[in-house]
Amino acid sequence: MAKPYPFSAIVGQDEMKDALLMAAVEPALGGVLVFGDRGTGKSTAVRALAELVPELTSTRGCRYNCDPDHPAEPCPVCATAARSERIKRRAPMVDLPLGATEDRVCGALDIEKALVSGERAFEPGLLAKAHRGFLYVDEVNLLEDHLVDLLLDVAASGVNVVEREGLSVRHPARFVLVGSGNPEEGELRPQLLDRFGLSVDVSSPRDIASRIEVLKRRDAYEHDPEAFHETWAKDEKRLASRIVAGRKAVHAVEVSERLMTMMAHLCMQLGVDGLRGELTLMRAARAKAALARRTEVTLEDVLAVAPMALRHRLRRDPLDEAGSKTRVDRAISEVAGHA
Amino acid sequence: MAKPYPFSAIVGQDEMKDALLMAAVEPALGGVLVFGDRGTGKSTAVRALAELVPELTSTRGCRYNCDPDHPAEPCPVCATAARSERIKRRAPMVDLPLGATEDRVCGALDIEKALVSGERAFEPGLLAKAHRGFLYVDEVNLLEDHLVDLLLDVAASGVNVVEREGLSVRHPARFVLVGSGNPEEGELRPQLLDRFGLSVDVSSPRDIASRIEVLKRRDAYEHDPEAFHETWAKDEKRLASRIVAGRKAVHAVEVSERLMTMMAHLCMQLGVDGLRGELTLMRAARAKAALARRTEVTLEDVLAVAPMALRHRLRRDPLDEAGSKTRVDRAISEVAGHA
Amino acid sequence: MAKPYPFSAIVGQDEMKDALLMAAVEPALGGVLVFGDRGTGKSTAVRALAELVPELTSTRGCRYNCDPDHPAEPCPVCATAARSERIKRRAPMVDLPLGATEDRVCGALDIEKALVSGERAFEPGLLAKAHRGFLYVDEVNLLEDHLVDLLLDVAASGVNVVEREGLSVRHPARFVLVGSGNPEEGELRPQLLDRFGLSVDVSSPRDIASRIEVLKRRDAYEHDPEAFHETWAKDEKRLASRIVAGRKAVHAVEVSERLMTMMAHLCMQLGVDGLRGELTLMRAARAKAALARRTEVTLEDVLAVAPMALRHRLRRDPLDEAGSKTRVDRAISEVAGHA
Amino acid sequence: MAKPYPFSAIVGQDEMKDALLMAAVEPALGGVLVFGDRGTGKSTAVRALAELVPELTSTRGCRYNCDPDHPAEPCPVCATAARSERIKRRAPMVDLPLGATEDRVCGALDIEKALVSGERAFEPGLLAKAHRGFLYVDEVNLLEDHLVDLLLDVAASGVNVVEREGLSVRHPARFVLVGSGNPEEGELRPQLLDRFGLSVDVSSPRDIASRIEVLKRRDAYEHDPEAFHETWAKDEKRLASRIVAGRKAVHAVEVSERLMTMMAHLCMQLGVDGLRGELTLMRAARAKAALARRTEVTLEDVLAVAPMALRHRLRRDPLDEAGSKTRVDRAISEVAGHA
Amino acid sequence: MAKPYPFSAIVGQDEMKDALLMAAVEPALGGVLVFGDRGTGKSTAVRALAELVPELTSTRGCRYNCDPDHPAEPCPVCATAARSERIKRRAPMVDLPLGATEDRVCGALDIEKALVSGERAFEPGLLAKAHRGFLYVDEVNLLEDHLVDLLLDVAASGVNVVEREGLSVRHPARFVLVGSGNPEEGELRPQLLDRFGLSVDVSSPRDIASRIEVLKRRDAYEHDPEAFHETWAKDEKRLASRIVAGRKAVHAVEVSERLMTMMAHLCMQLGVDGLRGELTLMRAARAKAALARRTEVTLEDVLAVAPMALRHRLRRDPLDEAGSKTRVDRAISEVAGHA
Amino acid sequence: MAKPYPFSAIVGQDEMKDALLMAAVEPALGGVLVFGDRGTGKSTAVRALAELVPELTSTRGCRYNCDPDHPAEPCPVCATAARSERIKRRAPMVDLPLGATEDRVCGALDIEKALVSGERAFEPGLLAKAHRGFLYVDEVNLLEDHLVDLLLDVAASGVNVVEREGLSVRHPARFVLVGSGNPEEGELRPQLLDRFGLSVDVSSPRDIASRIEVLKRRDAYEHDPEAFHETWAKDEKRLASRIVAGRKAVHAVEVSERLMTMMAHLCMQLGVDGLRGELTLMRAARAKAALARRTEVTLEDVLAVAPMALRHRLRRDPLDEAGSKTRVDRAISEVAGHA
Repeated sequence: MAKPYPFSAIVGQDEMKDALLMAAVEPALGGVLVFGDRGTGKSTAVRALAELVPELTSTRGCRYNCDPDHPAEPCPVCATAARSERIKRRAPMVDLPLGATEDRVCGALDIEKALVSGERAFEPGLLAKAHRGFLYVDEVNLLEDHLVDLLLDVAASGVNVVEREGLSVRHPARFVLVGSGNPEEGELRPQLLDRFGLSVDVSSPRDIASRIEVLKRRDAYEHDPEAFHETWAKDEKRLASRIVAGRKAVHAVEVSERLMTMMAHLCMQLGVDGLRGELTLMRAARAKAALARRTEVTLEDVLAVAPMALRHRLRRDPLDEAGSKTRVDRAISEVAGHA
Repeated sequence: MAKPYPFSAIVGQDEMKDALLMAAVEPALGGVLVFGDRGTGKSTAVRALAELVPELTSTRGCRYNCDPDHPAEPCPVCATAARSERIKRRAPMVDLPLGATEDRVCGALDIEKALVSGERAFEPGLLAKAHRGFLYVDEVNLLEDHLVDLLLDVAASGVNVVEREGLSVRHPARFVLVGSGNPEEGELRPQLLDRFGLSVDVSSPRDIASRIEVLKRRDAYEHDPEAFHETWAKDEKRLASRIVAGRKAVHAVEVSERLMTMMAHLCMQLGVDGLRGELTLMRAARAKAALARRTEVTLEDVLAVAPMALRHRLRRDPLDEAGSKTRVDRAISEVAGHA
Repeated sequence: MAKPYPFSAIVGQDEMKDALLMAAVEPALGGVLVFGDRGTGKSTAVRALAELVPELTSTRGCRYNCDPDHPAEPCPVCATAARSERIKRRAPMVDLPLGATEDRVCGALDIEKALVSGERAFEPGLLAKAHRGFLYVDEVNLLEDHLVDLLLDVAASGVNVVEREGLSVRHPARFVLVGSGNPEEGELRPQLLDRFGLSVDVSSPRDIASRIEVLKRRDAYEHDPEAFHETWAKDEKRLASRIVAGRKAVHAVEVSERLMTMMAHLCMQLGVDGLRGELTLMRAARAKAALARRTEVTLEDVLAVAPMALRHRLRRDPLDEAGSKTRVDRAISEVAGHA
Repeated sequence: MAKPYPFSAIVGQDEMKDALLMAAVEPALGGVLVFGDRGTGKSTAVRALAELVPELTSTRGCRYNCDPDHPAEPCPVCATAARSERIKRRAPMVDLPLGATEDRVCGALDIEKALVSGERAFEPGLLAKAHRGFLYVDEVNLLEDHLVDLLLDVAASGVNVVEREGLSVRHPARFVLVGSGNPEEGELRPQLLDRFGLSVDVSSPRDIASRIEVLKRRDAYEHDPEAFHETWAKDEKRLASRIVAGRKAVHAVEVSERLMTMMAHLCMQLGVDGLRGELTLMRAARAKAALARRTEVTLEDVLAVAPMALRHRLRRDPLDEAGSKTRVDRAISEVAGHA
Repeated sequence: MAKPYPFSAIVGQDEMKDALLMAAVEPALGGVLVFGDRGTGKSTAVRALAELVPELTSTRGCRYNCDPDHPAEPCPVCATAARSERIKRRAPMVDLPLGATEDRVCGALDIEKALVSGERAFEPGLLAKAHRGFLYVDEVNLLEDHLVDLLLDVAASGVNVVEREGLSVRHPARFVLVGSGNPEEGELRPQLLDRFGLSVDVSSPRDIASRIEVLKRRDAYEHDPEAFHETWAKDEKRLASRIVAGRKAVHAVEVSERLMTMMAHLCMQLGVDGLRGELTLMRAARAKAALARRTEVTLEDVLAVAPMALRHRLRRDPLDEAGSKTRVDRAISEVAGHA
Repeated sequence: MAKPYPFSAIVGQDEMKDALLMAAVEPALGGVLVFGDRGTGKSTAVRALAELVPELTSTRGCRYNCDPDHPAEPCPVCATAARSERIKRRAPMVDLPLGATEDRVCGALDIEKALVSGERAFEPGLLAKAHRGFLYVDEVNLLEDHLVDLLLDVAASGVNVVEREGLSVRHPARFVLVGSGNPEEGELRPQLLDRFGLSVDVSSPRDIASRIEVLKRRDAYEHDPEAFHETWAKDEKRLASRIVAGRKAVHAVEVSERLMTMMAHLCMQLGVDGLRGELTLMRAARAKAALARRTEVTLEDVLAVAPMALRHRLRRDPLDEAGSKTRVDRAISEVAGHA
């Protein structure tokens, strides 16, 4: 298959692109939820991003895509010295198919092998495959709740534990979870919504110029993918290096006490349950700053990420009929006024 | 079984025939959805078209119907030089039975073989069988959503990927997807509707002359199929050569910027979600032009394909009670007026 | 078990008997649907008819009941010369039990054989068993739609194709499909109704004389089946020879253009969807004529078969409250007036 | 376990006892349906009857309880001469448990045997066990329709045919089917009701004397079953010999044309669908006469059995609010007036 | 685990304790149904009673807990002389878990054994385990009807018959069935209610003194179970000897004709369906008398057991709004007035 | 994985922390139910507590985590002397996943082992894993009732008994059951509610200072877990020693008759069903006293634990609209007034 459409060549959709970049830089954000119309390039963007992040080093024959430089939790293959040839590969981008079973997602006993050879082997699932890359769930609101739960658990802990049928397997599974959903088709339970880090809305461009631009770029891409990639190579490279730098710097980015207080105020003001709101705000602001090659979070960072971090955590307030976006914006402006 | 009824001998039904021919010339259109009464010859038309397109060259023993002249993705059989006898065969026309399981469609592990001989073999499914031909789904609106999804995914990507139960198989599956549906029997979700390239309506002929003509031709065909084919041989040959020529020329057909702008206007005007509308319009217009042996898309091409490309992508507009066909026609005439 | 009750000894029920005889002469009619009260001898009639049609010649050991004189599609057994002993047998009459699975109907992999001996064998189903005979489905309206679909597909094509679990079996399955239904117990979808060739209504005799006649004949039959058969032997023989002659002659029976036009008018008038109505009318009229040892269809033939061929294809017309029988009769008299 | 309570010692319940005796004499009646309160001794009566009918002769080792004196359809065991030791046994009385599967009822492939020894053996079901005896279905209205259907089919034909999973088994299964039902708990479909031969109502005795009598007899029986049986031995013997005589004579009992006409009138009058009503009337009247050691059916026989034979075959008539018993009685008196 | 709480130390709950004792003395009563609040010590009482009844003698290795002194129905193990070592054990008290399957209750083929060793062995279920003891079903109203049915059948007949999958096992299963239910949580079908012998209501003590007494005893028991048992040893012994004596004497207890008549009157008066009411009254009164070491039933015995024996057998009478307890009491006083 | 967040560093949530500590000291309390908002650190607290309780001694290779110093119920491994190497390990904290099956929870036959090697082995489940530690069930109100039942049964008895499929396994399973629930998402049946020992409500801190404190601590913990643990080491140690002391002393703590009476009054006053309320009050008060290193329960202990012990046991009283917390508080103050 041809190389996917380049991330930089996506027309508009800045909020979604920002959120994906932040998640690529700080996986602890806990996933991105993208709401919006069909045909707005959600999966295109995720696929493009997987192409953009640095290649991974792994060991030939390793089915868990272990990182040979962080041998803390080596898989059976990597634990044996014999298999040490290193290989490079693209970050994986795994599409979770609708109707996937828990076995397919988590991995399961390889029944055939057990029956045929009497050997009890673990067959890794999609979570193992997504390790160190991206897991995209289209129409996440149509997935069964316990699977969403499981995805969020693994995304949060970075570890997949399978314990049943006499198996006890534990392997690393760190990935950026991206879920897309169409709010017209069924909602996520608030418990699940709250566990996604960021949420963004996308829609088709509303101005003719952008639409024609999309059509032309798409046409150019389909006519000659190689040439098209050539055209965008410089932008892609620049973006890739921002991601690399951001990943290194993000944990050292500082957050002032004043901004921390403001974040708490913001969440109180909005009546966000629990404390995931504040934590996400802090992490997202750090990622934003790191992508901008700054070492301290600014007020602007907080204001920019607040809608993505909080919008999906609001309780429905029957006395306040404004949409959740409006309520977040209003709270931001009030709190920012004080900050 | 006797040769199917010839495509050229189908009485009327021009829009359906046009759409099928365009799809035969440009598979990237993403399938044709045919709405309409029962007994209007939908499956007859698809079967006839499969007979009309050029014969395929493949390798004896290949279960994936690989193209020996495009060895980019050879199947296990074709990859070994030993099995190289080339054979000619008709383009496949696969009927997807109602109630088909995902395993039957995609292929699956051959359980019996595994149990009996301990060998883990992949049993190709209907998608492999339809490669380089046609996949017909009668009453697609009665199929489970996740299967429709899967068919559309494969039809769009041209690749079938099966990854489960320790299998990891990937084989080409390029086919023209044709779905028929009776709108009285249940609707497709808008998400699925939108992913079909073209949609057409068919109905029984309303004039006596046509009906008698159908009856006579049918009677003649059933009485002596060979003689009937003889009668229509010249028409069939002419049509077949238009398809061959169209397939070669379609990607080089040019679309002027003016027409591209007009397509965007048309979709905006109609409030078509996303950008699949514009892309389909462009591809369909190119196929239309290529079938007419032209090298540039004309305004007439766009006007002719717009209803098929857009009708099934409209949102329901409670303030506009006109049917979707009327709304497309109105938008065309407005936009065409400006173009 | 004793020989079934003779067909000729059935009291009354002329329309049902006519329809069954036509279907026995022209299987392409596509099945007979019998609506009516319980206890009106529907299955008795089918069983009797199976006894009446000529015996079949087949090959000993053949599980598909192949016709050794038409070796076009021989089964594995018949394809080997070794097994060539010819045997005579009655035309099969297969009762499809309620709750039959698709595997039981179509045939399936013989799992036990595969597990035990490692051999992959096909176990033919009820369709193979019904080949060259009759398939009776009591209460067809209680059968799952996809099974009815499947039965109608095979009845129409004369071929049963089973492709799954690594099996690819194709065997002839030409039979007269007879479905019985009680309209009070649930309806068939119009799509399925339309695919049955003929439909008739039956009810218990309303006059005392006939009822006593039934009771006496039944009593006589149960008291001494052999003697009863003796009494009816001449009638049975006469009828059997009409069937044999009809089968030979039916495809050569001619239909004038005037009558073809009239059939089209009739269907238009009644708003019958698609063109199956006309085709069935033509085929039924030919069968009617062939049974009467005529070589041309007459107006009377058309008028006689029109109710059976069209009654179940009418759309519900809210402005016309007459029953479907009345509507067909009215349309016949109008159209016949013009003819 | 102790011998069951004697049939003759059942207090009251004459209609039920009559119906059971008739069914024991003429199994072609097609089963008895007993409606009524719980705790009214329905299963006690059937169990008692099974004890009353003559012992059966069968062959040791035969799992189908074949009749060695009617070797028309011998089972595999009886067909081999080696196994010819004759044994005597009580007529079986099989209780069909609620929730029994079709496999358990009809018999099925013995999967374990097939897996373990590779031998394909048929495991006979409850129908084989009930052969030449009684099959009792408590709360038949709670059984799934297709099972009731199956029971009625086998009861009517006397043959059980199992054809699936590569098995083709056919064994005799002639038994008296007795179903009990509580009309408050759900109804049988009219199609099924109609296929039962006779129906009777039972209720607890309404007078104190009878209730005390039941209590005393029950107490006596439980206190000393042997002594209790002694007390009733003469009555039991007398009844048993009536059954034996009745079975021999029943098919030779004559029915005059006048009474046949009257039966037809009665059914017409009551609007009974189909002709099962008349046939059952005739057979029941013959059994009644045979039990009374008469060689011709009398008017009184017909009048006595008419309610049992017809009550459950009436259509609901909205203009006639009388219960079905009243309607049958009224029709009897009108028709009898003319006879 | 420690010895259970002693039966005699249960504070209050006299009606429940009486009913359980009667059932322990006369298992033919057919089970006890205990309705009432949670936490009222229902399972404690049953467990305590199992501890109280005399120890059983059985044979080592016997999985059916056969009685070696009543070798009428020996199990396979007990039938072989080799295994004759006698052992003593407590009467079993089996808790039927919610969600138990029929296989688990009745026993089933030991599939693993069959697969692995080719040997067809029966794995006894909970019914075998409960033989000669108690079977407690908490929340019996949540159990599936067919399981309740089965439990009641076995409890009534004392025999468990398993016939399927080629198994034909029959073993004794005599036990006291105790079901508890919370009427707020769903009702039993009247058919099932009627088959329980006795029913009692329990509730928490309403006076402080009793509650403190419960708390103290419970505290004392939990603090030092051994000492607590010491304290109650004499009471327990006295009660145990009453049970032993009662069991021996119960079948010889006499019931006068006058009291039998009164029982019939009582049931008629209350409109109890069938005759189970009278039979249970008689048996319960006998058990009551036997526990009191009397040889004849007195009027007081009947009056005392009537509410337990009849309360759950009343039909709902729309004209009589009194609760079932009130109705039984009223009928008792009327009937007793006459007696 | 890093060490979990320290228990002592949890900001606020005193009632939850108290209840968990009491349950750690007196497992007979029967579990803690935590109601409240998402994101309030419920699982964090349980995980932290598991880290805090003393390490366990067990035997290498033992899959049941048996206590080698209490060899009363040794598992197969511990029963053999050969395997006697002692190891130390953290108290287990087992997360019961939503959707866990009964087999996974209780353990089950190891089917693969049985099939492959013919050996019948028990595969311990999550209950075995939780032995001597904690079992946390998030969203316990979404668990199926029979599983909750089972968990409560085992938590109460300390023993897991698995008896099916020919298995008869019994192993100790003593753990602190902690269930979390969101009352907005569905309720537990009162029967289940009542069986939990204590219930507490948690919510996010409502004051800014606490929220910032949480954020800062969390940030500090995530930035450098080791350093953070260092900071809290002294608090953790102090708390751990209170638990150790409490466990030793709890059963000897005395309760005066006056306080026992008061507890009974309190439960009567509140109309608590059954006597679990009093028992829990007594046990919880003892645990409270033991944690405070006192040897006698005080009035204050009772008042402090009463809301946790009783709140979830109230019946809904339509005449008293106050919330359950208010009702408990009111009853406490009334009763305490008298005490």
